[in-house]
Amino acid sequence: MTLETLYNLIDQKKDEFIALLAKAVAIPSVSADANLRPKVYEMADFVVDEFTKLGAKMEKRDIGFHEMDGQKVPLPPIVLGQYGSDPSKKTVLIYNHFDVQPASKSDGWSTEPFKLEVDNKDRMIARGVTDDKGPLIGWMSAVQAYQECGLDFPVNLLMCFEGMEEYGSEGLDDLIRAEAQKYFAKADCVCISDTYWLGTKKPVLTYGLRGVSYFSMTVEGPAADLHSGVFGGTVHEPMTDLIAVMSSLVKPNGEILIPGIMDEVAELTSEEDRLYDTIDYEMSDLKNATGADISIYSDTKRTLQHRWRYPTLSLHGIEGAFSGSGAKTVIPAKVNGKFSIRTVPNMEPETVRKLVQDHVEKVFSALGSKNKLTFHALHAGAWWSSSPNHWHYDVGSRATERVFGVKPDFVREGGSIPVTVTFEHALNRNVLLLPMGRGDDGAHSINEKLDLDNFMKGIKLFCTYVHELALEQQ
Amino acid sequence: MTLETLYNLIDQKKDEFIALLAKAVAIPSVSADANLRPKVYEMADFVVDEFTKLGAKMEKRDIGFHEMDGQKVPLPPIVLGQYGSDPSKKTVLIYNHFDVQPASKSDGWSTEPFKLEVDNKDRMIARGVTDDKGPLIGWMSAVQAYQECGLDFPVNLLMCFEGMEEYGSEGLDDLIRAEAQKYFAKADCVCISDTYWLGTKKPVLTYGLRGVSYFSMTVEGPAADLHSGVFGGTVHEPMTDLIAVMSSLVKPNGEILIPGIMDEVAELTSEEDRLYDTIDYEMSDLKNATGADISIYSDTKRTLQHRWRYPTLSLHGIEGAFSGSGAKTVIPAKVNGKFSIRTVPNMEPETVRKLVQDHVEKVFSALGSKNKLTFHALHAGAWWSSSPNHWHYDVGSRATERVFGVKPDFVREGGSIPVTVTFEHALNRNVLLLPMGRGDDGAHSINEKLDLDNFMKGIKLFCTYVHELALEQQ
Ligand SMILES: [Zn+2]
Ligand SMILES: [Zn+2]
Ligand SMILES: [Zn+2]
Ligand SMILES: [Zn+2]
Repeated sequence: MTLETLYNLIDQKKDEFIALLAKAVAIPSVSADANLRPKVYEMADFVVDEFTKLGAKMEKRDIGFHEMDGQKVPLPPIVLGQYGSDPSKKTVLIYNHFDVQPASKSDGWSTEPFKLEVDNKDRMIARGVTDDKGPLIGWMSAVQAYQECGLDFPVNLLMCFEGMEEYGSEGLDDLIRAEAQKYFAKADCVCISDTYWLGTKKPVLTYGLRGVSYFSMTVEGPAADLHSGVFGGTVHEPMTDLIAVMSSLVKPNGEILIPGIMDEVAELTSEEDRLYDTIDYEMSDLKNATGADISIYSDTKRTLQHRWRYPTLSLHGIEGAFSGSGAKTVIPAKVNGKFSIRTVPNMEPETVRKLVQDHVEKVFSALGSKNKLTFHALHAGAWWSSSPNHWHYDVGSRATERVFGVKPDFVREGGSIPVTVTFEHALNRNVLLLPMGRGDDGAHSINEKLDLDNFMKGIKLFCTYVHELALEQQ
Repeated sequence: MTLETLYNLIDQKKDEFIALLAKAVAIPSVSADANLRPKVYEMADFVVDEFTKLGAKMEKRDIGFHEMDGQKVPLPPIVLGQYGSDPSKKTVLIYNHFDVQPASKSDGWSTEPFKLEVDNKDRMIARGVTDDKGPLIGWMSAVQAYQECGLDFPVNLLMCFEGMEEYGSEGLDDLIRAEAQKYFAKADCVCISDTYWLGTKKPVLTYGLRGVSYFSMTVEGPAADLHSGVFGGTVHEPMTDLIAVMSSLVKPNGEILIPGIMDEVAELTSEEDRLYDTIDYEMSDLKNATGADISIYSDTKRTLQHRWRYPTLSLHGIEGAFSGSGAKTVIPAKVNGKFSIRTVPNMEPETVRKLVQDHVEKVFSALGSKNKLTFHALHAGAWWSSSPNHWHYDVGSRATERVFGVKPDFVREGGSIPVTVTFEHALNRNVLLLPMGRGDDGAHSINEKLDLDNFMKGIKLFCTYVHELALEQQ
C-alpha cells in the first residue's frame, strides 16, 4: 500500500533528513541583522539548489531594496518553484520562510544556536528548526520520499518561499498580487506550515487568526521637557493627560471600554461554541506558558475564546517619557502612548479605527487640557477565518488522522499571519494552516526545538496530505 | 562714602572681573561626566588659589569615593575657607558650587560652551556663568573690591564650596553636620547664591522651597514579556494595571486625587496671600518659559501659589514598557511607574509616604488583578520655608534696594535645594537665598547666560550685603 511504503522509507531515511535540516539551520539566515543578510541570500540559494536537485524548476525573484539602519540594503529574493505540471492533477501552492529570528549563545542558549543538536529527549535544538526550516525541509523530504519509492507525486506543487518573514515580509504582498493570475494561477489551494499545535500532544488544524490594528496617540504641550519643581502644578502635563486617556481604553479584567467595539464582533454560535468543548488544553498550559498564575478566566473555554475569537486591547508603552532606571523629576514635553487591538470577525479595520479615534478624542477633549493630542492609526492587519467544514480542511483532517491516529483539534490563533489573508484574497483560494511543531517549541525564544517525532510525522503528514488531496473529488 | 567708593572701583575693574569669570568657566568642571572629573579637581584648586591670593585660609576636604558607571571614582574635595576671624565682627557662611551641568556644542549652543563670550546684548554666555560660577567669582570680586579700596571687610567670611551639586551633592550633608559645631560654629547666618530672579526685571529674595518625595510602583506578572496576539485577553496585563493606578493619582487639572494629602497643607493666611499681589510676574512669563500656552490657571496669583506653596504630583514615566519608536506588540512582563510629589509646609515626608502607599495599594487591590504590585518610596527631600520678616532678610532687602533702587520681591521656588535645609537644621541659623542671575538665564539649558549688568550689580550686592550685615543690631 502506497502510504505504508512511504512511511517505511521515511523511517529509513531519518538520519539523512535530519542531516539536511542540520545543513539548513547551519546557515544563520537572520533577516533582522544587516550583517547576516548575505546568509539569507545563501539560504535562498540552498533552497533553490535542493529543490532543483529534486527536479523542480526554481527561480529567484529580485524584489529591490529596503532601508535598514539608515542604509539601502537589497532585499533577499523570493524563491518561486514548480514541481510537476500535469493538468490532470490538482495543484497546491506551498509557502514557507527561510529566514529566522536572531539568536546568540549569550542570550542563554544551552547549545550553539546555529548547530543542530539532538538532546536526550529526542528533541532537535537550533534556531529555525521549527520556525520555519523544519517544515521547509519537510517538504523537500516528502518529495524525495515519493521519488525514492518510485511513486508518482500525486499533485503539482507551486512554491513561494520568502526570506523576510521575521522582518516584516517586505515586498511579499506585492509579488503575490502580481503573480496571482500568472505564476500562481493554477493553484487549487494554498498550504502554509508556519503555525504550531496548541499543546504538546494533539495535532491541530488552524482555521482562524486574529488581525491587529495598531494605534498611538501623541500628547504634546511645552516646547521642551520641563522641571517638575518649577512648572509642576501650573501647567497641563502631557503625561497626566496621556495616562488619563490610556486608562479609558481597557479594564484590568480585559474588558474593552471603547463604545461600539464589541458590537462589531460576530456572535458566538452554539456550533462554534461546541468546537471548544473537546480541545486539548488545560489551564495549567496557560500557567506554564506565562510562568505565573495570572489568568483572567478560570476555565479553558472562555480562555481560548478570548484568545481566538474575541478582541483584546493591550497597552504596549510610552515613547518620550522617562523610561530609564533611577529617579528623574522631568515633565516630558511630548509623549506617545501605544496600544493595539487584536481584531476578529466581523470587525472592519476602518470601523475600528473610527470608533477608537472618536473615543480617544472625546475622552481627551473632556479632560479640558490645553495640550494637543494627535491620534495615529499605524497599521491594520486583517483577521482571517476559514471554515473547518471546507473540503480542504477535510483533506488536512483525514491526513492528520491517518498519521497520528487521532482527529486534529480545530483551533484558531490569537496572533496574525498576514500572508494568509494575502493569499486568500489575491488567489481567491482556500488556505490551510497545517502545522508541524508543538505549542512549546519556543519559536522565537532561546533553545528553539522541534521534536524528532514531529519532524518525522510531519514529513509523513505532507506525503499523506498530497495523497489525500489527489483523492478528493472536487 | 564707603559704598560709593566700592561701586566706583567695581565699575573700573569690570574687565578684570569678567576675565576672572572667563578663567573659571574655561575649566569644564562637569561633575556628571567621569571623563571630566579631573577638571572638577582643577576647579577646586582654582578656587583655593584665588581665595588664598586674597588672604583667605583655604583647605580641601577629601570626602572619599563614589560609584560611577560601575567604577570607583574619587569625589571632588569640598573646599572650606575662612576670611577674617575678628570676634567683634559678625560671621557669615557662604555656599556655592563650582561644578556645572554637561554642555557640548552639538547640543545646539550658538557658541563654544566653555568659552565665555559677551554678546551684543551685554550677556555673558557660557556653561556655568550663572550656575554657579558667576556668584562664586562675585564673592572673590567683592573681597578684592574692599581690599583695593583699602576698606576693612566688615564681616568674617566662612566658606563652603562643593563640586558635586549637579550630581547629587554626595558627601556634603555629612560634612556639614560634622562641622556644624566645629568649622562652621561661629556662623551667625548662611548666605546661598544659587537661585534666580523670578523674572527678568526685578530682584528677589527667596524665602521658601518645595520638597520632593519620589515614588515608584512595580507591577509584575508573567515570567517574561508575552506576545499580545497569543496572550492578550486571557491574562492580567501589568501595563493595564499600572496605567489604571497611575490615572488615580492626579487629575489633568493638577488636582491631587490621593485622599488626605491636601489636609497636610498649611492654610494660606491673608498676610501670605497679600505677598503675591505685588510680585513682578506675568502670565506671558510662564508662556515664554514653557514655549506654549498650557497654563492651568489664568491669573499669576494662583499660578505662583501652585508653583510655590501648594503640592503637585507629576507622572514622569514608566520603566520596562515599550519605549522605542515603531510599533511593537509586546505585553511587558514587569513595569515600573514613576511619579513625585512636590511637598510644602506642613507635609511630613513619612505622612505623605503613608497616604500615597495606602492609596496606591487600595486602588490596585480594587482592580482585582492577579499581578503583583510593589510600592517604593525612593527618596524624600524636605521643603524649606523661612520668614520674610527675619532680620537677615531685612539685611538682604536693604542691600538689594540700595543697589537696584527697588525693594526685592519676596518669592519662593517650586524646586528643591536640599543644602538649604541641611544648613538650617545642622547650624540652627537663618539661611538667606540671595540671587545674582535672572529667571531666563537658562541654568541647565543651552546658551546659559548671565547679564553683565547682573554680574556687576551682583558684586555690588554682595559688598552691600556684608556692609548692611555689619550694621545690623542683633
Ligand atoms: Zn514563522
Ligand atoms: Zn517566526
Ligand atoms: Zn546651581
Ligand atoms: Zn544647577
